[in-house]
Amino acid sequence: MSTYAGEKETRLNLMPWPVKVDLTGGEYRLDQQFTVAIRGDAADRLYHGTSRMLRRLSARTGITFTQDYLVRDSTVRNPVMVIQVDRPGKLVLGEDESYKLQVTASRILLSAKDGIGALRGIETFLQLLEADSSGYYFPAVNIVDHPRFAWRGLMIDASRHFMPVDVIKRNLDAMAAVKLNVLHWHLSDNQGFRVECKKFPKLTEFGSDELFYTQAQIKNVIAYAADRGIRVVPEFDLPAHTTAWFVGYPQYASAAGPYKIERKWGVFDPVFDPTVSKTYTFLNEFFKEMCSIFPDKYIHIGGDENDGKQWNANPRIRKFMKAHKIATNALLQTYFENKLIPIIQRYHKEVVGWDEILAPGLQKTAVIQSWRGIKSLQEAASKGYRVILSNGYYVDHYMPASSCYLVDPSPDSLKLTEAQRQMIIGGEACMWSEFVSPENVDSRIWPRTAAIAERLGSPESVRGVRDMYRRLDGISVELENIGSAYIKNQQMMIRRLADGNHIAALTNLINVIQPVETYERARTRQYASYTPLTRVVDAAVPDPKVARNFCFMVDDFLSDMDPNKDTLEAIRQELSIWKKNDESLEVVAEKSPILKEIEPISKSLSVIASIGLEALDHIENGANVGADWVNSSLAKIDLAAEPAGEVHLTIISPIKKLVERAGGR
Amino acid sequence: MSTYAGEKETRLNLMPWPVKVDLTGGEYRLDQQFTVAIRGDAADRLYHGTSRMLRRLSARTGITFTQDYLVRDSTVRNPVMVIQVDRPGKLVLGEDESYKLQVTASRILLSAKDGIGALRGIETFLQLLEADSSGYYFPAVNIVDHPRFAWRGLMIDASRHFMPVDVIKRNLDAMAAVKLNVLHWHLSDNQGFRVECKKFPKLTEFGSDELFYTQAQIKNVIAYAADRGIRVVPEFDLPAHTTAWFVGYPQYASAAGPYKIERKWGVFDPVFDPTVSKTYTFLNEFFKEMCSIFPDKYIHIGGDENDGKQWNANPRIRKFMKAHKIATNALLQTYFENKLIPIIQRYHKEVVGWDEILAPGLQKTAVIQSWRGIKSLQEAASKGYRVILSNGYYVDHYMPASSCYLVDPSPDSLKLTEAQRQMIIGGEACMWSEFVSPENVDSRIWPRTAAIAERLGSPESVRGVRDMYRRLDGISVELENIGSAYIKNQQMMIRRLADGNHIAALTNLINVIQPVETYERARTRQYASYTPLTRVVDAAVPDPKVARNFCFMVDDFLSDMDPNKDTLEAIRQELSIWKKNDESLEVVAEKSPILKEIEPISKSLSVIASIGLEALDHIENGANVGADWVNSSLAKIDLAAEPAGEVHLTIISPIKKLVERAGGR
Repeated sequence: MSTYAGEKETRLNLMPWPVKVDLTGGEYRLDQQFTVAIRGDAADRLYHGTSRMLRRLSARTGITFTQDYLVRDSTVRNPVMVIQVDRPGKLVLGEDESYKLQVTASRILLSAKDGIGALRGIETFLQLLEADSSGYYFPAVNIVDHPRFAWRGLMIDASRHFMPVDVIKRNLDAMAAVKLNVLHWHLSDNQGFRVECKKFPKLTEFGSDELFYTQAQIKNVIAYAADRGIRVVPEFDLPAHTTAWFVGYPQYASAAGPYKIERKWGVFDPVFDPTVSKTYTFLNEFFKEMCSIFPDKYIHIGGDENDGKQWNANPRIRKFMKAHKIATNALLQTYFENKLIPIIQRYHKEVVGWDEILAPGLQKTAVIQSWRGIKSLQEAASKGYRVILSNGYYVDHYMPASSCYLVDPSPDSLKLTEAQRQMIIGGEACMWSEFVSPENVDSRIWPRTAAIAERLGSPESVRGVRDMYRRLDGISVELENIGSAYIKNQQMMIRRLADGNHIAALTNLINVIQPVETYERARTRQYASYTPLTRVVDAAVPDPKVARNFCFMVDDFLSDMDPNKDTLEAIRQELSIWKKNDESLEVVAEKSPILKEIEPISKSLSVIASIGLEALDHIENGANVGADWVNSSLAKIDLAAEPAGEVHLTIISPIKKLVERAGGR
Repeated sequence: MSTYAGEKETRLNLMPWPVKVDLTGGEYRLDQQFTVAIRGDAADRLYHGTSRMLRRLSARTGITFTQDYLVRDSTVRNPVMVIQVDRPGKLVLGEDESYKLQVTASRILLSAKDGIGALRGIETFLQLLEADSSGYYFPAVNIVDHPRFAWRGLMIDASRHFMPVDVIKRNLDAMAAVKLNVLHWHLSDNQGFRVECKKFPKLTEFGSDELFYTQAQIKNVIAYAADRGIRVVPEFDLPAHTTAWFVGYPQYASAAGPYKIERKWGVFDPVFDPTVSKTYTFLNEFFKEMCSIFPDKYIHIGGDENDGKQWNANPRIRKFMKAHKIATNALLQTYFENKLIPIIQRYHKEVVGWDEILAPGLQKTAVIQSWRGIKSLQEAASKGYRVILSNGYYVDHYMPASSCYLVDPSPDSLKLTEAQRQMIIGGEACMWSEFVSPENVDSRIWPRTAAIAERLGSPESVRGVRDMYRRLDGISVELENIGSAYIKNQQMMIRRLADGNHIAALTNLINVIQPVETYERARTRQYASYTPLTRVVDAAVPDPKVARNFCFMVDDFLSDMDPNKDTLEAIRQELSIWKKNDESLEVVAEKSPILKEIEPISKSLSVIASIGLEALDHIENGANVGADWVNSSLAKIDLAAEPAGEVHLTIISPIKKLVERAGGR
C-alpha cells in the first residue's frame, strides 16, 4: 500500500485511510487537563462538533475534562489542542474537506481550510485514540488528508419500510464517523409517501399509513446532518414508483383510479401522466414547497423502473406520442424529465436521477446515479454528465464488505478521457428497504458501508482486503459507541427468537450463516410490508465476522508450509463447537417454533463441522485419505450448502478447502 | 395468593397479575388465519392498538397473518378474536380500565366498557402467548381485571440529563405493556429548561444548551402516549429548582442575576420572587401557553426543596413577609402556590405538587405527590387531599425490585378512615436523572418499574416476591421486544468498556455487582452534567438477575433438609467461574484503563468465590470446620463488601450464609 509511510502505521485503526500518515514516535497522553480551542472563522457547526469530540473522548475513557462546554466565547488558555480554520465552510458539493493533523507529545494541531474539513479531521483524531496499562494516549503522528471523491453518500429508503427520525439520526452519526457527506433520502415510492406536504396534504393522509415525517422533523434532521457536515438530498421518485401519490391524487396518474397503497414488492405500473399540463402544475406546486424545505442544491427525481404499461394502455397517451413524434416510452420519459427539470431549476436546484433518465436530449446539468452497471456510468461520463456510482454498493444485497470495497467508481478499465473521468464525482451505498425494518436496518448498512466510505474517500491504491477487515473491526467499535444499533439490535433479535431461553446455540449458528440473495428471498415467499422481519434470516447479517475470521484462519493454516499448531487448534476448537451446536439448538427450537425453519441448516452445520474435524485429523496425520472420502465429503458439503429458512452457511468454502487438502489436492 | 384460581395458573407470565385468572383447559392454536375485529363505539386509539397487537404477534412468532391492516372500515368475516367496547373511553383520571378476556379453543373475546380498558386487555392477551414444539398458542382462560389504583405513573426527569423523544417513546411503549397510565414529565429544573415556549423563547435559548423539545415534538409525544392510553402530566418545578428559567429571565428571581445553567447536582438557592406581581404576570402568560399544549387536566407545579436562602437574603422580601404577616418561608411558598393555582385553574387545569406544598391554607383541589415518606402521604389524605405515593419508588436509587414491590401506597398501618383512604389515588415510579443518560436510563427504569406497576395495578394480596421475580423475567422479554433498551444498551456499554476486547470476564463481573447508593455516588466524586456516565458503575444495574438467582439458589440449597446435588453443583459452577474471572479481567483491563477502578472488586469476587467453594466442600464433607476458619472467612467477606469504583458486590450475603452453614451456625 503506497499510502502507508511504513509498516508501523499498519497498526492504526484509521478508516477511511488518509492520504498520508506518518507516525513520528512518542505520544500525547490524555488526562483531564486536555483542552481544546478553536481558532479562525468557524461556524457553530465546528463548536458543536468539537464539544461532541470532548464528550466522545470522555465516554470512551471515563475522564471528566476540566473543560466543560465549548462555546464561541470560551477562552481557553494554552490549549493542548488547537483547531484552526480559515473559514466556516459551506455545505455544498465540492467544498474543500482537506485537513492536516499533527499530534506531538505535548500539542495537537488540526488545521483545515474550512470547518467541514476540520470535522473530518476530528473523526480521524478520535480514531487515533489508543490505550495501554498506563492510560489513554494519541500516537504522535502527521496526517494529511483529503477525500478522493466529492460525493460520498448513503441512500436510505424510508418508503418501503418507514424509518423513524432516530434511525436516520443514528445513521447520520455513523456516516460522519467515516466521513460520508451525503444522505440521499428516498422519500416516496409505491409503498408510501413520507413527507408532509402542506399544499397537498392527501399525499400523506392517504399515502402513508400515518407514517411520515412532519416538516418540523425534516428540518430537524437536515440541521442534525448539517451539524455533521452532511448534505441531505431528498428523492421523490418519478414518474413511476408513484402509487402512494395517486391514492390521494389519482387524477395525475396515467390510468384511472382508485389507487391503494402498494403492500407488495416489485415493479408496478402506476406512472404520472406526462401528456397533460395539470401534471406539471401539480409538480410545480409540489416542488416549490419541497425546494423551500430542503436547502441542498440537489433534488433527486428518481426516474427508474418505469414499465410503461399504463402509457401503452392509454389511447390518449399513445395519440399524444404520435402527435409529438415520440417514438418510445423512454423518450416520453425524457419529455417528462425535460419538462420537470426546468420546474425544479426555477427554485434554484439541480436534479439527480437514476440512470434510466439518461436518454437522448436530457439536459446536461442532471447528475446521473448509475445503479444498473458500470456501463451506464461510462456512458453518462462520456456524454458529459456528472455521475455517481451505486452499482456494486447495494447494501440491501448481502455481499461481503470485500466485494463492495473492491468496486471502484473510476476503474482503469473505463474507456474515458481524463476530462470525462472528472465527471465521475463519487458514489453512494444504497439501502433499499424491502427486507429491512428499523430494527435491522443498521446491520445491513454497517459496518459494510464503512468499506464503501473508504473506497470513496481514500486513495485508489488503498485496496488490501485483509487490512480493510482489520480496520473495519476497529471502526466497528466506534460506530456502535456513537449510536449505530447494528450489534445490539441483532442480539436483541436473537433474544426474541430464543424467547427467554439460552441464546448461545442460536448465536453460534447465526455467526456462520447469512441471508440468501435478496432476489432469492423475494422468490421464496410472498413478502409484503406487514410481513414480520424478525426471523433468523432477518437477524443474520451479511459477511458475519466469526465466519469471515474462520475463513482467514483456514487460509492462513493452509498457505503456511509449516502450519502453526495454534492455528490448527483454534480451527479445531471452532469446529468442535459447531459440531455439537445442533443438539443445544434443538432444545431451544422445541420452545421457539419460529426457529423450526432453520433446523436443517443447524444440522448441516453439524455435518460439515464433523467433516472439517475429520479433514484436520487427516491433514495432521499426513495419511493418504483416498478419493472416496474426499468425494463423499464434498458431496455432503454441497448438500449442506443448500439454503433453508432463506439462510445459508458461509463456511462452506473453508471446509471444502480442508477436505481437498486432506485429499492432497 | 388468594387471586390465583389454583396452582396451575402460576405458570402464566402475567404482570401485573389480574384480579381473576381461571385456566379452563385446552388452548387456541395461533396460525395465519387468526383474525380480529373491533365491535362497538371505538376510537382510532383502539384500531391502532389492535393493529400493533397483530404486528407484535407476527414479530414474536414469525407468522404473517392474512389480515393485514386493521382500519375502521375493515370487514372481517367470522373473526377469531372480537374486541367489544361500549364507548371510546376518555383519557382522564378515573376512567374505567376494566376488561374481561375469554380464550377458548376456537374463539377469543375481549370485552371492556371502553377502549382504554380494551388496550389493557390486549396487553394481558399478548402476555398469554405460549409455545410448544407444535407451535404457538393461547391457553384457554377466563380473566377479569381492573386496576387497584387510578393513577399509575412513571416520572422521567428530562432536565438534568435531556432525554430525546425516542427515549420517551420507547418508555411509553414499555409503560403500556405493564398498564401504567401516567407519564409525569419533569421538564424544567436548575440544569435545563426543556420545552419550547413561544411567548418566552429565552427559556430554551439560554436555559437548555439547545437540548429541548419543540412544541411539535411535545404534541407528537402526547399523541403517542394517548394512542397507548397514557396521560401526560408535565411538571414545571416552581418556585425553586428554577435556575434554568432565570438565565434568560433573571428579573423574576429573588436575587439579582446574571444566572448560568447549573452544571452540578444538589439543592440550589435560585427561587422565584413571590412578592411582585410581574412574577404572576409572567407565570400567567407562561402557563396559558403550556396549558394549550398539554391537554391533560393536571399540571405538576413541583414545589420541592426550596431552601429559602434567596428569600432570607432579600430585604424587600423579608419586609413583604412582615407586612403580610407571613411568618415562615413555608408559608410564603403557600402564598405563592395559592396565587399560582388560580392562574392554572383559569385554564381549566388542576395542580399536582410535591409534598412540600402541603402547608396550612393550600387549596383542597391540589394533588399531593408524597416523596419524603409515608407520613406525608397519611397527612395529605387525612387532611382531605388526593395523594399519590412516590416514596419507595425512586428508581434512581438502586434498590432491588423486591423492595419497591413491597411498598404499598395504602398499607394497613396507615391511620386513616375509609373515606380518607380513598384519597390515596395511586403512585409513581420516579426516574431522576443525575446519574443516567439516554444510554442507561432504561436499565434504571426497567424491569423494576414493572414490579411497581404490579403493586399499583394488582390486588393488594398479590405479594409473593419469588413469584414476582419469575414473572418479571417473563415480562422482561416482552419489554425488550417492544423497544426498551435496558438489556441491549447495557451490553453495548460493556463492549465499549472492553474496547473491542473479549467481554465475557467483564460481563461476569457486572452480573454480580451494582452501583453504590445514589447519595453515596454523589459523595464519591464531584459529578456534573458533563461527567461521562459510561463507567462500569453506569453499566452495572440494580438487582442484577444472575446475582439474584444465585441468592435464591443458595437459599434453596440451605433450606432444603436433604440438599439437592444439582443445586449444589450449579452453585459450585458459578463460584468456579467467579473464582477465576479476575485473571481474564486483568487482561482486558490492561488495554482498557477505564476498568482500572474496579480491579479491587474483581479481586474481591475471586476471594469470596474461593471462600464459597471452600464452604461448599466443608458442607458436603460434613466436617467440623471450626470457628477460626468461619471468623477469618467472614472477615475477608466483609472486606470484599467494600465498594470500589462506586460499585459493590451483590453476592456477599449468600456467601456468608454458606460460610455460616459450614460452621454449623
